[in-house]
Amino acid sequence: MKKLTTNEIAEALKNLSGWALKDDMIEKTFTFKDFKEAFATMTHIAFECEKQNHHPNWENVYNSLTIKLSTHDADGLTQKDIDLAKSIDEIVG
Amino acid sequence: MKKLTTNEIAEALKNLSGWALKDDMIEKTFTFKDFKEAFATMTHIAFECEKQNHHPNWENVYNSLTIKLSTHDADGLTQKDIDLAKSIDEIVG
Repeated sequence: MKKLTTNEIAEALKNLSGWALKDDMIEKTFTFKDFKEAFATMTHIAFECEKQNHHPNWENVYNSLTIKLSTHDADGLTQKDIDLAKSIDEIVG
Repeated sequence: MKKLTTNEIAEALKNLSGWALKDDMIEKTFTFKDFKEAFATMTHIAFECEKQNHHPNWENVYNSLTIKLSTHDADGLTQKDIDLAKSIDEIVG
């Protein structure tokens, strides 16, 4: 999986909403009604991650969920991160 | 819920395995076989958190799970954190 160039990342971010580039990862924070809503959504996302065989760095505190994506093997961002970000946005809706 | 004193925290940590005091929270990192094992355990823990009405700050990256506990309302550690830590250790086994 090829590492995206700075231009490719900028282009990809235009088609994503709320994802920001930070420390060579793309990052977004979601807020839910409560812990149950947050964790239910995490469960949905977890299944999608397994399907895509790509996994996030994610942190949950009660109703807040911060997701950071990068591709460890490529030491940066790849299309896998962009694809997973899109899927996550579709799941959260 | 009463904030624990330094002595009470030290005493409680003696009865917990692998939990360390850091930034006014108790923290422990667990490692699993893979993402599925990690998330399955998180799901189990999530139900226990709801039952105890106490929620962690937790971060997962693939097969690694770091859990930090403190009591926001008490601005420090309380017996709720010690109880949840014990439950988490029982769940992970």
